[in-house]
Amino acid sequence: MNLIVNYNGKREKIEFKKQKNLLEIFQENNINISAPCGGNGTCGKCKVKLLSKKSNVTKKEKNLLSNKEIKKGVRLACVTKAKNNMEVELNKDQELEIMDYSIERNIDLDPLINKSNIKIEKPTLENQKDYLSRIYKKSDTIKTNYSLIKSFPENIDEFNEITLFTKNEKLIDIKYNKNTKNYYGISIDIGTTTVVLYLINLETGEKKDVYSFKNPQQKYGADVISRVNHTIEKENGIEDIQDVLIKKINYALKKLINKNNLKANNIYQCVIVGNTIMLHTLLGVSAESITKSPFTPIFTNSVELKASNFDININKNGIIKLLPSVSGYIGADILADMLTISQINDNNKWSLLIDIGTNGEIVLDNGENAYACSTAAGPALEGANISFGMAGIPGAISEYKITEDNQINYSTIRDRKAKGICGSGLIDIIAELYDKDYLDKNGGFKKDLDENKKDRITEYKNFTSYKVIDNNDSENSDIFLTQKDIREIQLAKGAIEAGIKVLIQEADISYEDIEVVYLAGGFGNYLKPESACTIGLIPYQLENKIERIGNGAGMGAILSLLNDNMFDLIQNLKNRINYIELSSKKDFQEKFMNSMYFGKIS
Amino acid sequence: MNLIVNYNGKREKIEFKKQKNLLEIFQENNINISAPCGGNGTCGKCKVKLLSKKSNVTKKEKNLLSNKEIKKGVRLACVTKAKNNMEVELNKDQELEIMDYSIERNIDLDPLINKSNIKIEKPTLENQKDYLSRIYKKSDTIKTNYSLIKSFPENIDEFNEITLFTKNEKLIDIKYNKNTKNYYGISIDIGTTTVVLYLINLETGEKKDVYSFKNPQQKYGADVISRVNHTIEKENGIEDIQDVLIKKINYALKKLINKNNLKANNIYQCVIVGNTIMLHTLLGVSAESITKSPFTPIFTNSVELKASNFDININKNGIIKLLPSVSGYIGADILADMLTISQINDNNKWSLLIDIGTNGEIVLDNGENAYACSTAAGPALEGANISFGMAGIPGAISEYKITEDNQINYSTIRDRKAKGICGSGLIDIIAELYDKDYLDKNGGFKKDLDENKKDRITEYKNFTSYKVIDNNDSENSDIFLTQKDIREIQLAKGAIEAGIKVLIQEADISYEDIEVVYLAGGFGNYLKPESACTIGLIPYQLENKIERIGNGAGMGAILSLLNDNMFDLIQNLKNRINYIELSSKKDFQEKFMNSMYFGKIS
Repeated sequence: MNLIVNYNGKREKIEFKKQKNLLEIFQENNINISAPCGGNGTCGKCKVKLLSKKSNVTKKEKNLLSNKEIKKGVRLACVTKAKNNMEVELNKDQELEIMDYSIERNIDLDPLINKSNIKIEKPTLENQKDYLSRIYKKSDTIKTNYSLIKSFPENIDEFNEITLFTKNEKLIDIKYNKNTKNYYGISIDIGTTTVVLYLINLETGEKKDVYSFKNPQQKYGADVISRVNHTIEKENGIEDIQDVLIKKINYALKKLINKNNLKANNIYQCVIVGNTIMLHTLLGVSAESITKSPFTPIFTNSVELKASNFDININKNGIIKLLPSVSGYIGADILADMLTISQINDNNKWSLLIDIGTNGEIVLDNGENAYACSTAAGPALEGANISFGMAGIPGAISEYKITEDNQINYSTIRDRKAKGICGSGLIDIIAELYDKDYLDKNGGFKKDLDENKKDRITEYKNFTSYKVIDNNDSENSDIFLTQKDIREIQLAKGAIEAGIKVLIQEADISYEDIEVVYLAGGFGNYLKPESACTIGLIPYQLENKIERIGNGAGMGAILSLLNDNMFDLIQNLKNRINYIELSSKKDFQEKFMNSMYFGKIS
Repeated sequence: MNLIVNYNGKREKIEFKKQKNLLEIFQENNINISAPCGGNGTCGKCKVKLLSKKSNVTKKEKNLLSNKEIKKGVRLACVTKAKNNMEVELNKDQELEIMDYSIERNIDLDPLINKSNIKIEKPTLENQKDYLSRIYKKSDTIKTNYSLIKSFPENIDEFNEITLFTKNEKLIDIKYNKNTKNYYGISIDIGTTTVVLYLINLETGEKKDVYSFKNPQQKYGADVISRVNHTIEKENGIEDIQDVLIKKINYALKKLINKNNLKANNIYQCVIVGNTIMLHTLLGVSAESITKSPFTPIFTNSVELKASNFDININKNGIIKLLPSVSGYIGADILADMLTISQINDNNKWSLLIDIGTNGEIVLDNGENAYACSTAAGPALEGANISFGMAGIPGAISEYKITEDNQINYSTIRDRKAKGICGSGLIDIIAELYDKDYLDKNGGFKKDLDENKKDRITEYKNFTSYKVIDNNDSENSDIFLTQKDIREIQLAKGAIEAGIKVLIQEADISYEDIEVVYLAGGFGNYLKPESACTIGLIPYQLENKIERIGNGAGMGAILSLLNDNMFDLIQNLKNRINYIELSSKKDFQEKFMNSMYFGKIS
């Protein structure tokens, strides 16, 4: 049977055999479509437009799609059965605004793999020392790949100077040609949502280029749990989510390499950071045990692999290193954030690090002891499970202000036509609604609103809703924020607030003892501190202490690539962390319930 | 075209295309035939019997074969052109008496790869430590093969105990099944002539089994120089001599493994010893630079290879280590001899080590300083270039005595019918001839012999010759020792004698300072000390100080397998050696000429 798919300006005919839904066919054929809920029919994101062959509207679609959409033939790919000769249209591939910004740090260059140029002294009868000892003096034992020995040239005397690449006392590579100035490394930050690659010149330390893409595992679910479920339910599920990630990384690597006139052989090292589950999926290791109590990972230590052993296409003699994690839900990304912070904050006052994504990881650290927890903030802050929520892509409302005279000011990413709301926009809107008395402390819409305000309150999808903006055209519908959306954000912010409170209690300190609050990650970078403190996501006492570090995880990976001693430093950071498992804390549930309220936390 | 070959009881039809000589066809088809001179038509060893198709007799064959042989249809394979439908017969594959005896040493077990059984503690909410950290505590960084991580089982909780194999801080292998008692290593001694494999139980230190075979590189020449010439002259020559060796090692390994009910996976380590050129050929590295002044090897350091990288079929996660060499002509075999000696001689008196093969390597050592040289003794002492010379195989005359009443007592290896003379036999015969006044000090047959003696003097191949034994049958000819043979032995013994003198002079000591003389290797093990001292191969002052250590090189490889610290010890031995390049010593030539004489050296 055939399915015709129109996407990205192409019209492609795809064969399929068994009765399947459209989402499954898209996934099998590597057609990118957002399906944050993993195809469960709950997020309503996998919209397609049927160009031929009608399809009945399911209950799920009635709930998740507007009447306008349904009339136009829009359906959800996850519940729509493919029929022979059906023709469908997908939205343009959505371009994600990936945050590759980070505070910049300088560091001494001391990478794992060193390059040195060696002049070869010619042997004489008085000095018959063997050729390899002439060039390689680091060890009495030659530890190297066999291929390097095998390819050692007979006519070595004809080379005046050769270039050695060594890793501690191990010989990694020998270059006999003169043009060996290209000696690069790659740092990779694997986020649940986005992946960023940094191309680093290991001779100068220069950040040469950046490439980012949406984590292609998203076709198996937006959140890590959905992806792990895929590995549990499908026979080759672990390989599915590993392969799709590694293929895309290699694609990105090739793009970076070509654009900079390099070859894969010029890349000698790769340092990878990510949350614990991402690193498990990268290595094709089951993360199932992380998702079930007692949430035990297979590995948390740093991993060092030979490139010849692993499918990331750098120099086959090169090394791939993963930064260590702390636990199943405090990953290498958080340790990398801490590493980045350690380069700007070397005093021993308490600092609070908050990295909000699907989970909210929080670390309270004074340079000697650190307390860390991970809160299941849920994907709401990334726009999932929110009626008009969306990731931080062009067209997402990222800032929102209601003026004194009830006018609305807002901006969208790249100033495109507003299509939905991303995390920072959601916080702004809710903070404004609370500040302007639309909402009470419990998060409910107030009953006795004045006329001006009442105008914007309406019903959407059976919920009392606030009309965020009017879109007066046929293409785009108005944008609403429902009571349910607000409850989702309350849950998310409550989890983070409660997490902060638990750590403060564990460390036995008060807010005044905290000198600085670091916000890491894309969400944290766009978040307006006053809005965050207004709704109580962050305690108001800390409002003036907030600093943004951007993609601290990516920066940590870069630092660890530039200077391998960072792996010792990060190990120290790991060792000083007391990981607090919130689900084992008896009073967490109570703190959580008390953290739902808006307003100043005390 | 076809050639029919009868050998080892088989009759095989072999196709060949171009005009070739028989030797080339045998070599291409892996038919073992001795050709010590490498096919130059000078050694006369590659005899075949033509069963059909006459072939003209060349000048070389006239010189090297007896008339009886020529009449029977015996020809030399290296000068006989193959013709279509020619049928030939080869002698039975000659069984070499390989010396795998060595003095035995006990040593603490401390192999490179360690085995340990680990009980897995189940995780709890209070102790979420990752699984790999539960079993592997040696390093903060997991250094291992990717496959081990990838195959880590999801259901690890179901295993009570697992077995780890580690190399320093590196994780080498994990076994999840109970039956992991088999943990073995292999030591290999690669001689120019013979290769010996020892199977060692790494849990008990027991020498479990031995397997030895003729070095199959001999089809490219008996001596190392002929083999290196093959690599220079033939396009894939380096691969030829590497492949033939590695294939035979793997064949031997399989035999050993099967016989002892093991699997290749049970072999975790392999330690290899050999002379410098053998180790170069093993790694497929050009040894050309060793054969030309200034005799510089590509490598002398110890080499450590991953089994996954190299074609010796042990556990793919295992390690293959080569012992270090000193120079092009003082190889790992000599350092291994020294290592073996260091386990029996720990006082600081001077000792002299002599390992006679194709080369004669000599080391003078007092535990602090050592002086070493290699003398081009030539292959005469191994029976090459000697009319009736042969290797130490069954039927070789190994002992020889002329009684007072001019009777002859002799013995052959395995008491077989005498077919020729091996090295120790040659020394015995010449010592007897000198002792019984057949020869003068210069090595010439005396003119004025009495009648009894004159009877045994005759002409053979145009040389004055001594009839060693009468073989009164049609199958075997009489055995002679010619004046030329004696000159060959004089050259060989003179080289060793001169080498000893140079070292004594370098060390500035006298014979009295030497406490013990160690004879290593097969030749040294059968050599009669009084005969060696009679002809002046070894100074007579040392006659009572001679000890045999047998295959000290093989023993050194075993010790290094059992205890990896031996690699440090052997490195110390290497560091204390002053290598004396005889060709750069101005007075060596003079010493050499003065060492031709028989009788007591002073």
